[in-house]
Amino acid sequence: MEKLQRNERVSVLQRILSESPGKVFNLGYFSQLLGCAKSSVSEDIDIIRGSLEKAGAGIIETIPGASGGVRYIPMLGPEATAELAKSLSAELSRRERILPGGYLYMLDIIYDPVIVSEIAKFFTGAFHDKGIDYVITVETKGIPLAFMTARYLNKPLVIVRHYNEATDGASVNINYVSGSSKKIQTMVLSMRSLKHQSRLLFVDDFMKGGGTARGILDLAREFECEVAGNAVLVQTEEPRKKLVNDCFSLLTLHGVDESSGMTVISPNRK
Amino acid sequence: MEKLQRNERVSVLQRILSESPGKVFNLGYFSQLLGCAKSSVSEDIDIIRGSLEKAGAGIIETIPGASGGVRYIPMLGPEATAELAKSLSAELSRRERILPGGYLYMLDIIYDPVIVSEIAKFFTGAFHDKGIDYVITVETKGIPLAFMTARYLNKPLVIVRHYNEATDGASVNINYVSGSSKKIQTMVLSMRSLKHQSRLLFVDDFMKGGGTARGILDLAREFECEVAGNAVLVQTEEPRKKLVNDCFSLLTLHGVDESSGMTVISPNRK
Repeated sequence: MEKLQRNERVSVLQRILSESPGKVFNLGYFSQLLGCAKSSVSEDIDIIRGSLEKAGAGIIETIPGASGGVRYIPMLGPEATAELAKSLSAELSRRERILPGGYLYMLDIIYDPVIVSEIAKFFTGAFHDKGIDYVITVETKGIPLAFMTARYLNKPLVIVRHYNEATDGASVNINYVSGSSKKIQTMVLSMRSLKHQSRLLFVDDFMKGGGTARGILDLAREFECEVAGNAVLVQTEEPRKKLVNDCFSLLTLHGVDESSGMTVISPNRK
Repeated sequence: MEKLQRNERVSVLQRILSESPGKVFNLGYFSQLLGCAKSSVSEDIDIIRGSLEKAGAGIIETIPGASGGVRYIPMLGPEATAELAKSLSAELSRRERILPGGYLYMLDIIYDPVIVSEIAKFFTGAFHDKGIDYVITVETKGIPLAFMTARYLNKPLVIVRHYNEATDGASVNINYVSGSSKKIQTMVLSMRSLKHQSRLLFVDDFMKGGGTARGILDLAREFECEVAGNAVLVQTEEPRKKLVNDCFSLLTLHGVDESSGMTVISPNRK
Protein backbone atom coordinates (compact mmCIF):
# COMPACT_ATOMS: atom_id res chain seq x y z
CA MET A 1 0.00 0.00 0.00
CA GLU A 2 1.34 3.45 -0.89
CA LYS A 3 2.24 5.83 1.90
CA LEU A 4 -0.84 7.33 3.51
CA GLN A 5 -1.47 10.61 5.31
CA ARG A 6 -2.52 10.47 8.94
CA ASN A 7 -6.19 11.19 8.17
CA GLU A 8 -6.25 8.42 5.56
CA ARG A 9 -4.65 6.04 8.08
CA VAL A 10 -7.28 6.98 10.66
CA SER A 11 -10.00 6.23 8.11
CA VAL A 12 -8.54 2.80 7.32
CA LEU A 13 -7.99 1.92 11.00
CA GLN A 14 -11.42 3.10 12.09
CA ARG A 15 -13.06 1.07 9.33
CA ILE A 16 -11.13 -2.09 10.11
CA LEU A 17 -11.83 -1.80 13.84
CA SER A 18 -15.54 -0.98 13.30
CA GLU A 19 -16.03 -3.88 10.93
CA SER A 20 -14.24 -6.45 13.07
CA PRO A 21 -15.53 -5.66 16.56
CA GLY A 22 -13.96 -7.67 19.35
CA LYS A 23 -11.03 -8.85 17.22
CA VAL A 24 -7.53 -8.25 18.58
CA PHE A 25 -5.24 -6.51 16.08
CA ASN A 26 -1.52 -6.40 16.60
CA LEU A 27 0.05 -2.96 16.12
CA GLY A 28 2.73 -4.63 13.99
CA TYR A 29 0.03 -5.81 11.59
CA PHE A 30 -1.31 -2.28 11.20
CA SER A 31 2.18 -0.84 10.88
CA GLN A 32 2.90 -3.22 7.99
CA LEU A 33 -0.48 -2.68 6.34
CA LEU A 34 -0.12 1.11 6.44
CA GLY A 35 3.63 1.28 5.83
CA CYS A 36 4.38 3.43 8.86
CA ALA A 37 6.04 3.16 12.27
CA LYS A 38 4.29 1.44 15.18
CA SER A 39 4.51 4.69 17.12
CA SER A 40 2.46 6.42 14.39
CA VAL A 41 -0.16 3.65 14.50
CA SER A 42 -0.27 4.08 18.24
CA GLU A 43 -0.99 7.80 17.86
CA ASP A 44 -3.64 7.09 15.22
CA ILE A 45 -5.33 4.65 17.60
CA ASP A 46 -5.30 7.33 20.32
CA ILE A 47 -7.22 9.65 18.01
CA ILE A 48 -9.81 6.94 17.40
CA ARG A 49 -10.02 6.12 21.10
CA GLY A 50 -10.61 9.79 21.89
CA SER A 51 -13.37 10.18 19.32
CA LEU A 52 -15.11 6.99 20.50
CA GLU A 53 -15.00 8.03 24.12
CA LYS A 54 -16.40 11.48 23.36
CA ALA A 55 -19.30 9.85 21.55
CA GLY A 56 -19.84 7.15 24.23
CA ALA A 57 -19.83 4.66 21.37
CA GLY A 58 -17.51 2.06 22.84
CA ILE A 59 -13.95 1.51 23.93
CA ILE A 60 -10.60 0.56 22.44
CA GLU A 61 -9.07 -2.03 24.74
CA THR A 62 -5.34 -2.57 24.85
CA ILE A 63 -4.26 -6.16 25.42
CA PRO A 64 -0.67 -6.31 26.65
CA GLY A 65 1.91 -8.97 25.85
CA ALA A 66 3.42 -10.62 22.79
CA SER A 67 0.07 -11.78 21.38
CA GLY A 68 -1.56 -8.50 22.44
CA GLY A 69 -2.83 -5.53 20.52
CA VAL A 70 -5.95 -3.45 20.42
CA ARG A 71 -9.59 -4.29 19.96
CA TYR A 72 -12.74 -2.26 19.58
CA ILE A 73 -15.74 -3.05 21.77
CA PRO A 74 -18.92 -1.31 20.59
CA MET A 75 -21.20 -0.11 23.36
CA LEU A 76 -24.25 2.04 23.76
CA GLY A 77 -23.61 5.03 26.03
CA PRO A 78 -26.06 5.83 28.87
CA GLU A 79 -27.81 8.60 26.90
CA ALA A 80 -28.22 6.49 23.77
CA THR A 81 -29.47 3.58 25.91
CA ALA A 82 -32.08 5.75 27.61
CA GLU A 83 -33.21 7.11 24.26
CA LEU A 84 -33.46 3.63 22.71
CA ALA A 85 -35.44 2.27 25.68
CA LYS A 86 -37.79 5.24 25.60
CA SER A 87 -38.46 5.08 21.87
CA LEU A 88 -38.98 1.29 21.93
CA SER A 89 -41.36 1.57 24.91
CA ALA A 90 -43.42 4.14 23.01
CA GLU A 91 -43.41 2.08 19.82
CA LEU A 92 -44.35 -1.18 21.57
CA SER A 93 -47.23 0.49 23.47
CA ARG A 94 -49.10 1.32 20.26
CA ARG A 95 -52.55 -0.30 20.44
CA GLU A 96 -52.27 -1.83 16.93
CA ARG A 97 -49.59 -4.10 18.36
CA ILE A 98 -51.95 -5.95 20.70
CA LEU A 99 -52.76 -9.42 19.37
CA PRO A 100 -55.45 -11.89 20.51
CA GLY A 101 -54.42 -13.43 23.83
CA GLY A 102 -52.65 -10.27 24.96
CA TYR A 103 -49.51 -10.90 22.90
CA LEU A 104 -47.58 -8.01 21.36
CA TYR A 105 -46.58 -7.86 17.70
CA MET A 106 -42.82 -7.27 17.83
CA LEU A 107 -41.46 -8.99 14.70
CA ASP A 108 -40.78 -5.73 12.82
CA ILE A 109 -38.70 -4.52 15.79
CA ILE A 110 -36.75 -7.69 16.58
CA TYR A 111 -35.85 -8.28 12.91
CA ASP A 112 -34.91 -4.64 12.18
CA PRO A 113 -31.16 -4.52 11.51
CA VAL A 114 -30.68 -1.01 12.91
CA ILE A 115 -32.64 -1.54 16.15
CA VAL A 116 -31.16 -5.02 16.65
CA SER A 117 -27.64 -3.56 16.34
CA GLU A 118 -28.36 -0.96 19.01
CA ILE A 119 -29.78 -3.51 21.44
CA ALA A 120 -26.82 -5.81 20.77
CA LYS A 121 -24.43 -2.97 21.65
CA PHE A 122 -26.29 -2.55 24.93
CA PHE A 123 -25.84 -6.28 25.69
CA THR A 124 -22.18 -6.10 24.63
CA GLY A 125 -21.48 -3.32 27.11
CA ALA A 126 -22.82 -5.53 29.90
CA PHE A 127 -21.15 -8.83 28.94
CA HIS A 128 -17.90 -8.08 27.10
CA ASP A 129 -15.85 -8.61 30.27
CA LYS A 130 -17.66 -11.74 31.50
CA GLY A 131 -15.50 -14.28 29.70
CA ILE A 132 -18.23 -15.40 27.28
CA ASP A 133 -17.20 -18.16 24.84
CA TYR A 134 -20.46 -18.55 22.88
CA VAL A 135 -23.73 -16.70 22.38
CA ILE A 136 -26.64 -19.14 22.40
CA THR A 137 -30.30 -18.77 21.43
CA VAL A 138 -33.31 -20.91 20.57
CA GLU A 139 -34.90 -20.60 17.12
CA THR A 140 -36.40 -18.31 15.83
CA LYS A 141 -37.26 -14.86 17.08
CA GLY A 142 -34.11 -14.23 19.12
CA ILE A 143 -31.69 -15.16 16.34
CA PRO A 144 -31.01 -11.69 14.87
CA LEU A 145 -30.36 -10.27 18.35
CA ALA A 146 -28.16 -13.20 19.34
CA PHE A 147 -26.26 -13.07 16.06
CA MET A 148 -25.49 -9.37 16.37
CA THR A 149 -24.42 -9.77 20.00
CA ALA A 150 -22.12 -12.62 18.94
CA ARG A 151 -20.71 -10.38 16.22
CA TYR A 152 -19.95 -7.55 18.64
CA LEU A 153 -18.45 -9.94 21.20
CA ASN A 154 -16.56 -11.70 18.37
CA LYS A 155 -17.77 -15.10 19.57
CA PRO A 156 -19.49 -17.96 17.70
CA LEU A 157 -23.28 -18.12 17.64
CA VAL A 158 -25.06 -21.35 18.56
CA ILE A 159 -28.70 -21.91 17.60
CA VAL A 160 -30.76 -24.50 19.46
CA ARG A 161 -33.59 -25.98 17.41
CA HIS A 162 -36.90 -27.67 18.17
CA TYR A 163 -36.46 -30.51 15.70
CA ASN A 164 -33.55 -32.63 14.65
CA GLU A 165 -32.26 -32.30 11.07
CA ALA A 166 -29.93 -34.35 8.90
CA THR A 167 -27.51 -31.42 8.66
CA ASP A 168 -26.96 -31.36 12.47
CA GLY A 169 -25.09 -34.64 12.65
CA ALA A 170 -25.33 -36.37 16.06
CA SER A 171 -27.26 -34.22 18.50
CA VAL A 172 -28.33 -33.91 22.12
CA ASN A 173 -32.06 -33.64 22.85
CA ILE A 174 -33.60 -32.43 26.07
CA ASN A 175 -37.19 -31.78 27.07
CA TYR A 176 -38.18 -28.65 28.91
CA VAL A 177 -41.38 -27.11 30.22
CA SER A 178 -42.30 -23.70 28.92
CA GLY A 179 -42.49 -21.37 31.94
CA SER A 180 -45.82 -19.81 31.06
CA SER A 181 -47.79 -22.36 29.03
CA LYS A 182 -46.47 -25.45 30.87
CA LYS A 183 -46.19 -27.20 27.51
CA ILE A 184 -43.43 -29.77 27.13
CA GLN A 185 -41.08 -28.93 24.26
CA THR A 186 -37.84 -30.32 22.89
CA MET A 187 -34.49 -28.62 22.43
CA VAL A 188 -32.00 -30.12 19.98
CA LEU A 189 -28.37 -29.15 19.67
CA SER A 190 -25.69 -30.64 17.45
CA MET A 191 -22.95 -32.42 19.43
CA ARG A 192 -20.34 -30.43 17.50
CA SER A 193 -21.74 -27.04 18.52
CA LEU A 194 -20.06 -26.46 21.87
CA LYS A 195 -16.70 -27.19 23.44
CA HIS A 196 -16.87 -28.56 26.99
CA GLN A 197 -16.21 -26.11 29.85
CA SER A 198 -17.43 -23.09 27.91
CA ARG A 199 -19.29 -20.08 29.23
CA LEU A 200 -22.50 -19.20 27.39
CA LEU A 201 -24.53 -16.03 27.07
CA PHE A 202 -28.19 -16.80 26.37
CA VAL A 203 -29.87 -14.10 24.24
CA ASP A 204 -33.57 -13.93 23.40
CA ASP A 205 -36.27 -11.40 22.54
CA PHE A 206 -38.62 -12.03 25.44
CA MET A 207 -38.69 -13.67 28.88
CA LYS A 208 -41.86 -14.40 30.81
CA GLY A 209 -41.61 -17.47 33.06
CA GLY A 210 -38.03 -18.23 32.08
CA GLY A 211 -38.76 -21.78 30.91
CA THR A 212 -36.65 -21.44 27.78
CA ALA A 213 -33.71 -19.97 29.71
CA ARG A 214 -34.08 -22.82 32.20
CA GLY A 215 -34.02 -25.33 29.32
CA ILE A 216 -30.79 -23.76 28.06
CA LEU A 217 -29.31 -24.17 31.54
CA ASP A 218 -30.16 -27.89 31.48
CA LEU A 219 -28.88 -28.29 27.93
CA ALA A 220 -25.64 -26.50 28.84
CA ARG A 221 -25.13 -28.99 31.67
CA GLU A 222 -25.24 -31.88 29.16
CA PHE A 223 -22.34 -30.20 27.34
CA GLU A 224 -20.52 -29.49 30.65
CA CYS A 225 -20.96 -25.79 29.95
CA GLU A 226 -22.09 -22.93 32.13
CA VAL A 227 -24.62 -20.17 31.43
CA ALA A 228 -22.87 -16.93 32.41
CA GLY A 229 -25.83 -14.68 31.68
CA ASN A 230 -29.30 -14.25 30.20
CA ALA A 231 -30.00 -11.15 28.12
CA VAL A 232 -33.40 -10.33 26.64
CA LEU A 233 -35.03 -7.30 25.08
CA VAL A 234 -38.23 -7.48 27.15
CA GLN A 235 -38.94 -9.27 30.41
CA THR A 236 -42.36 -9.39 32.00
CA GLU A 237 -42.93 -8.03 35.50
CA GLU A 238 -45.01 -11.10 36.41
CA PRO A 239 -44.15 -13.74 37.43
CA ARG A 240 -41.52 -11.98 39.51
CA LYS A 241 -39.86 -15.28 40.24
CA LYS A 242 -38.49 -16.60 36.95
CA LEU A 243 -37.11 -20.12 36.48
CA VAL A 244 -33.60 -18.61 36.21
CA ASN A 245 -32.00 -16.31 38.76
CA ASP A 246 -30.69 -13.52 36.61
CA CYS A 247 -32.17 -11.73 33.65
CA PHE A 248 -30.60 -8.68 32.06
CA SER A 249 -33.06 -6.71 29.94
CA LEU A 250 -33.74 -3.34 28.38
CA LEU A 251 -37.52 -3.17 28.97
CA THR A 252 -40.09 -4.48 31.43
CA LEU A 253 -43.61 -5.33 30.34
CA HIS A 254 -46.02 -4.58 33.17
CA GLY A 255 -49.20 -5.61 31.40
CA VAL A 256 -51.34 -5.68 28.30
CA ASP A 257 -55.07 -4.95 28.52
CA GLU A 258 -56.78 -6.20 25.39
CA SER A 259 -60.14 -4.60 26.11
CA SER A 260 -58.83 -1.06 26.61
CA GLY A 261 -55.95 -1.45 24.13
CA MET A 262 -53.46 -0.36 26.81
CA THR A 263 -49.92 -1.73 27.06
CA VAL A 264 -47.67 -0.71 29.92
CA ILE A 265 -44.01 -1.21 29.11
CA SER A 266 -41.09 0.77 30.47
CA PRO A 267 -37.32 1.17 30.39
CA ASN A 268 -35.82 -0.65 33.36
CA ARG A 269 -32.36 0.89 33.40
CA LYS A 270 -31.56 4.32 34.78
CA MET B 1 -19.45 18.84 20.31
CA GLU B 2 -16.16 20.72 20.68
CA LYS B 3 -14.21 21.62 17.57
CA LEU B 4 -12.43 18.59 16.12
CA GLN B 5 -9.30 18.23 14.05
CA ARG B 6 -9.65 16.76 10.57
CA ASN B 7 -8.33 13.35 11.60
CA GLU B 8 -10.78 13.20 14.50
CA ARG B 9 -13.58 14.14 12.14
CA VAL B 10 -12.52 11.39 9.73
CA SER B 11 -12.59 8.91 12.59
CA VAL B 12 -16.12 9.95 13.62
CA LEU B 13 -17.44 9.94 10.04
CA GLN B 14 -15.85 6.60 9.16
CA ARG B 15 -17.31 5.02 12.30
CA ILE B 16 -20.81 6.39 11.68
CA LEU B 17 -20.77 5.31 8.03
CA SER B 18 -19.36 1.84 8.85
CA GLU B 19 -21.90 1.23 11.58
CA SER B 20 -24.92 2.37 9.57
CA PRO B 21 -24.28 0.83 6.17
CA GLY B 22 -26.79 1.76 3.47
CA LYS B 23 -28.17 4.72 5.42
CA VAL B 24 -28.24 8.09 3.66
CA PHE B 25 -26.63 10.87 5.70
CA ASN B 26 -27.14 14.49 4.78
CA LEU B 27 -23.95 16.55 4.72
CA GLY B 28 -25.79 19.22 6.74
CA TYR B 29 -26.30 16.67 9.53
CA PHE B 30 -22.58 15.89 9.64
CA SER B 31 -21.66 19.56 9.45
CA GLN B 32 -23.84 20.29 12.49
CA LEU B 33 -22.63 17.21 14.40
CA LEU B 34 -18.97 18.10 13.84
CA GLY B 35 -19.34 21.89 14.03
CA CYS B 36 -17.60 22.55 10.72
CA ALA B 37 -18.46 23.75 7.22
CA LYS B 38 -20.17 21.43 4.72
CA SER B 39 -17.18 21.89 2.41
CA SER B 40 -14.91 20.44 5.12
CA VAL B 41 -17.25 17.47 5.60
CA SER B 42 -17.19 16.96 1.87
CA GLU B 43 -13.39 16.84 1.87
CA ASP B 44 -13.43 14.45 4.85
CA ILE B 45 -15.80 12.15 2.93
CA ASP B 46 -13.44 12.24 -0.06
CA ILE B 47 -10.63 10.96 2.16
CA ILE B 48 -12.85 8.10 3.33
CA ARG B 49 -13.99 7.35 -0.22
CA GLY B 50 -10.39 7.19 -1.37
CA SER B 51 -9.32 4.84 1.41
CA LEU B 52 -12.32 2.54 0.77
CA GLU B 53 -11.64 2.37 -2.93
CA LYS B 54 -7.98 1.60 -2.43
CA ALA B 55 -8.96 -1.30 -0.18
CA GLY B 56 -11.79 -2.50 -2.46
CA ALA B 57 -13.96 -2.51 0.65
CA GLY B 58 -17.01 -0.78 -0.75
CA ILE B 59 -18.21 2.51 -2.11
CA ILE B 60 -19.50 5.84 -0.86
CA GLU B 61 -22.48 6.73 -3.00
CA THR B 62 -23.61 10.32 -3.43
CA ILE B 63 -27.36 10.80 -3.68
CA PRO B 64 -28.16 14.17 -5.27
CA GLY B 65 -31.10 16.43 -4.43
CA ALA B 66 -32.64 18.04 -1.34
CA SER B 67 -33.12 14.75 0.50
CA GLY B 68 -29.78 13.47 -0.76
CA GLY B 69 -26.48 12.87 0.92
CA VAL B 70 -23.95 10.08 1.12
CA ARG B 71 -24.17 6.44 2.03
CA TYR B 72 -21.67 3.67 2.49
CA ILE B 73 -22.21 0.36 0.74
CA PRO B 74 -19.89 -2.38 2.01
CA MET B 75 -18.64 -4.79 -0.63
CA LEU B 76 -16.11 -7.53 -0.96
CA GLY B 77 -13.50 -6.74 -3.62
CA PRO B 78 -12.64 -9.39 -6.26
CA GLU B 79 -9.44 -10.48 -4.48
CA ALA B 80 -11.14 -10.83 -1.10
CA THR B 81 -14.03 -12.70 -2.74
CA ALA B 82 -11.67 -15.18 -4.42
CA GLU B 83 -9.82 -15.69 -1.15
CA LEU B 84 -13.04 -16.25 0.82
CA ALA B 85 -14.39 -18.72 -1.75
CA LYS B 86 -11.11 -20.61 -1.80
CA SER B 87 -10.78 -20.87 1.97
CA LEU B 88 -14.43 -21.91 2.41
CA SER B 89 -14.09 -24.56 -0.32
CA ALA B 90 -11.07 -26.00 1.46
CA GLU B 91 -12.78 -25.91 4.86
CA LEU B 92 -16.01 -27.48 3.59
CA SER B 93 -14.12 -30.31 1.82
CA ARG B 94 -12.69 -31.64 5.08
CA ARG B 95 -13.77 -35.27 5.43
CA GLU B 96 -14.96 -34.82 9.05
CA ARG B 97 -17.76 -32.67 7.65
CA ILE B 98 -19.46 -35.53 5.79
CA LEU B 99 -22.63 -36.66 7.58
CA PRO B 100 -24.76 -39.77 7.02
CA GLY B 101 -26.76 -39.36 3.80
CA GLY B 102 -24.03 -37.32 2.14
CA TYR B 103 -24.92 -34.08 3.95
CA LEU B 104 -22.22 -31.59 4.93
CA TYR B 105 -21.85 -30.16 8.43
CA MET B 106 -21.86 -26.40 7.86
CA LEU B 107 -23.43 -24.92 11.02
CA ASP B 108 -20.16 -23.57 12.41
CA ILE B 109 -19.58 -21.72 9.12
CA ILE B 110 -23.06 -20.33 8.53
CA TYR B 111 -23.41 -19.11 12.13
CA ASP B 112 -19.91 -17.59 12.33
CA PRO B 113 -20.29 -13.79 12.59
CA VAL B 114 -17.03 -13.01 10.75
CA ILE B 115 -17.60 -15.39 7.81
CA VAL B 116 -21.28 -14.47 7.57
CA SER B 117 -20.36 -10.78 7.35
CA GLU B 118 -17.97 -11.44 4.49
CA ILE B 119 -20.51 -13.47 2.52
CA ALA B 120 -23.16 -10.80 3.15
CA LYS B 121 -20.80 -8.17 1.71
CA PHE B 122 -20.43 -10.32 -1.40
CA PHE B 123 -24.26 -10.48 -1.75
CA THR B 124 -24.53 -6.74 -1.09
CA GLY B 125 -22.14 -5.94 -3.94
CA ALA B 126 -24.40 -7.90 -6.30
CA PHE B 127 -27.80 -6.61 -5.14
CA HIS B 128 -27.37 -3.09 -3.72
CA ASP B 129 -28.53 -1.51 -7.00
CA LYS B 130 -31.45 -3.87 -7.67
CA GLY B 131 -34.10 -1.88 -5.80
CA ILE B 132 -34.54 -4.45 -3.02
CA ASP B 133 -37.16 -3.54 -0.37
CA TYR B 134 -36.85 -6.58 1.93
CA VAL B 135 -34.49 -9.46 2.53
CA ILE B 136 -36.46 -12.68 3.11
CA THR B 137 -35.42 -16.11 4.38
CA VAL B 138 -36.98 -19.27 5.80
CA GLU B 139 -36.10 -20.38 9.31
CA THR B 140 -33.49 -21.38 10.50
CA LYS B 141 -30.09 -21.89 8.94
CA GLY B 142 -30.14 -18.95 6.52
CA ILE B 143 -31.15 -16.37 9.13
CA PRO B 144 -27.69 -15.04 10.09
CA LEU B 145 -26.74 -14.61 6.42
CA ALA B 146 -30.06 -12.97 5.57
CA PHE B 147 -29.88 -10.71 8.62
CA MET B 148 -26.41 -9.46 7.79
CA THR B 149 -27.32 -8.90 4.14
CA ALA B 150 -30.35 -6.90 5.29
CA ARG B 151 -28.11 -4.90 7.58
CA TYR B 152 -25.67 -4.03 4.77
CA LEU B 153 -28.51 -3.18 2.37
CA ASN B 154 -30.24 -1.26 5.18
CA LYS B 155 -33.54 -3.06 4.53
CA PRO B 156 -35.89 -4.94 6.86
CA LEU B 157 -35.47 -8.68 7.33
CA VAL B 158 -38.48 -10.99 7.00
CA ILE B 159 -38.38 -14.54 8.37
CA VAL B 160 -40.79 -17.14 7.05
CA ARG B 161 -41.61 -19.88 9.53
CA HIS B 162 -42.83 -23.45 9.31
CA TYR B 163 -45.45 -23.16 12.06
CA ASN B 164 -47.87 -20.45 13.04
CA GLU B 165 -47.38 -18.71 16.40
CA ALA B 166 -49.54 -16.43 18.54
CA THR B 167 -47.00 -13.62 18.20
CA ASP B 168 -47.42 -13.53 14.39
CA GLY B 169 -50.94 -12.16 14.38
CA ALA B 170 -52.94 -13.06 11.25
CA SER B 171 -50.77 -14.94 8.78
CA VAL B 172 -50.69 -16.38 5.29
CA ASN B 173 -49.93 -20.10 4.92
CA ILE B 174 -48.82 -21.82 1.76
CA ASN B 175 -47.75 -25.37 1.04
CA TYR B 176 -44.70 -26.12 -1.04
CA VAL B 177 -42.85 -29.20 -2.18
CA SER B 178 -39.21 -29.49 -1.22
CA GLY B 179 -37.24 -29.69 -4.48
CA SER B 180 -35.10 -32.65 -3.46
CA SER B 181 -37.09 -34.74 -0.96
CA LYS B 182 -40.52 -34.07 -2.56
CA LYS B 183 -41.92 -33.66 0.96
CA ILE B 184 -44.85 -31.24 1.36
CA GLN B 185 -44.07 -28.47 3.85
CA THR B 186 -45.79 -25.33 5.06
CA MET B 187 -44.58 -21.74 4.98
CA VAL B 188 -46.19 -19.20 7.31
CA LEU B 189 -45.75 -15.46 7.15
CA SER B 190 -47.40 -12.77 9.25
CA MET B 191 -49.76 -10.56 7.21
CA ARG B 192 -48.02 -7.50 8.63
CA SER B 193 -44.58 -8.51 7.37
CA LEU B 194 -44.59 -7.18 3.81
CA LYS B 195 -46.00 -4.15 2.02
CA HIS B 196 -47.67 -4.93 -1.35
CA GLN B 197 -45.63 -4.28 -4.50
CA SER B 198 -42.28 -4.83 -2.81
CA ARG B 199 -39.17 -6.38 -4.28
CA LEU B 200 -37.64 -9.21 -2.25
CA LEU B 201 -34.19 -10.72 -2.08
CA PHE B 202 -34.31 -14.35 -0.93
CA VAL B 203 -31.18 -15.38 1.01
CA ASP B 204 -30.37 -18.89 2.21
CA ASP B 205 -27.40 -21.08 3.03
CA PHE B 206 -27.95 -23.82 0.45
CA MET B 207 -29.91 -24.53 -2.73
CA LYS B 208 -30.35 -27.98 -4.23
CA GLY B 209 -33.59 -28.40 -6.14
CA GLY B 210 -34.80 -24.87 -5.42
CA GLY B 211 -38.08 -25.96 -3.79
CA THR B 212 -37.75 -23.47 -0.93
CA ALA B 213 -36.96 -20.60 -3.31
CA ARG B 214 -39.94 -21.64 -5.40
CA GLY B 215 -42.13 -21.61 -2.26
CA ILE B 216 -40.95 -18.06 -1.54
CA LEU B 217 -41.93 -17.08 -5.07
CA ASP B 218 -45.45 -18.42 -4.49
CA LEU B 219 -45.67 -16.81 -1.06
CA ALA B 220 -44.50 -13.47 -2.50
CA ARG B 221 -47.30 -13.64 -5.04
CA GLU B 222 -49.88 -13.87 -2.23
CA PHE B 223 -48.48 -10.58 -0.91
CA GLU B 224 -48.39 -9.09 -4.45
CA CYS B 225 -44.61 -8.92 -4.14
CA GLU B 226 -41.86 -9.89 -6.53
CA VAL B 227 -38.68 -11.90 -5.90
CA ALA B 228 -35.87 -9.85 -7.42
CA GLY B 229 -33.11 -12.34 -6.66
CA ASN B 230 -32.01 -15.53 -4.91
CA ALA B 231 -28.66 -15.54 -3.14
CA VAL B 232 -27.18 -18.60 -1.44
CA LEU B 233 -23.80 -19.59 -0.09
CA VAL B 234 -23.71 -23.01 -1.79
CA GLN B 235 -25.69 -24.34 -4.72
CA THR B 236 -25.44 -27.90 -5.94
CA GLU B 237 -24.36 -28.67 -9.49
CA GLU B 238 -27.16 -31.26 -9.83
CA PRO B 239 -29.99 -30.90 -10.61
CA ARG B 240 -28.86 -28.31 -13.16
CA LYS B 241 -32.44 -27.23 -13.67
CA LYS B 242 -33.62 -25.69 -10.38
CA LEU B 243 -37.24 -24.77 -9.64
CA VAL B 244 -36.28 -21.08 -9.91
CA ASN B 245 -34.51 -19.48 -12.86
CA ASP B 246 -31.75 -17.54 -11.19
CA CYS B 247 -29.47 -18.42 -8.32
CA PHE B 248 -26.55 -16.26 -7.26
CA SER B 249 -24.02 -18.14 -5.16
CA LEU B 250 -20.44 -18.16 -3.95
CA LEU B 251 -19.76 -21.91 -4.17
CA THR B 252 -20.90 -24.92 -6.18
CA LEU B 253 -21.09 -28.36 -4.64
CA HIS B 254 -20.27 -30.96 -7.28
CA GLY B 255 -20.60 -34.02 -5.12
CA VAL B 256 -20.05 -35.80 -1.81
CA ASP B 257 -18.80 -39.36 -1.75
CA GLU B 258 -19.48 -40.86 1.67
CA SER B 259 -17.45 -44.02 1.10
CA SER B 260 -14.21 -42.31 0.06
CA GLY B 261 -14.78 -39.23 2.27
CA MET B 262 -14.35 -36.94 -0.75
CA THR B 263 -16.26 -33.70 -1.19
CA VAL B 264 -15.89 -31.66 -4.37
CA ILE B 265 -16.86 -28.05 -3.89
CA SER B 266 -15.50 -25.06 -5.76
CA PRO B 267 -15.69 -21.28 -6.11
CA ASN B 268 -18.01 -20.41 -8.98
CA ARG B 269 -17.07 -16.80 -9.60
CA LYS B 270 -14.03 -15.69 -11.49
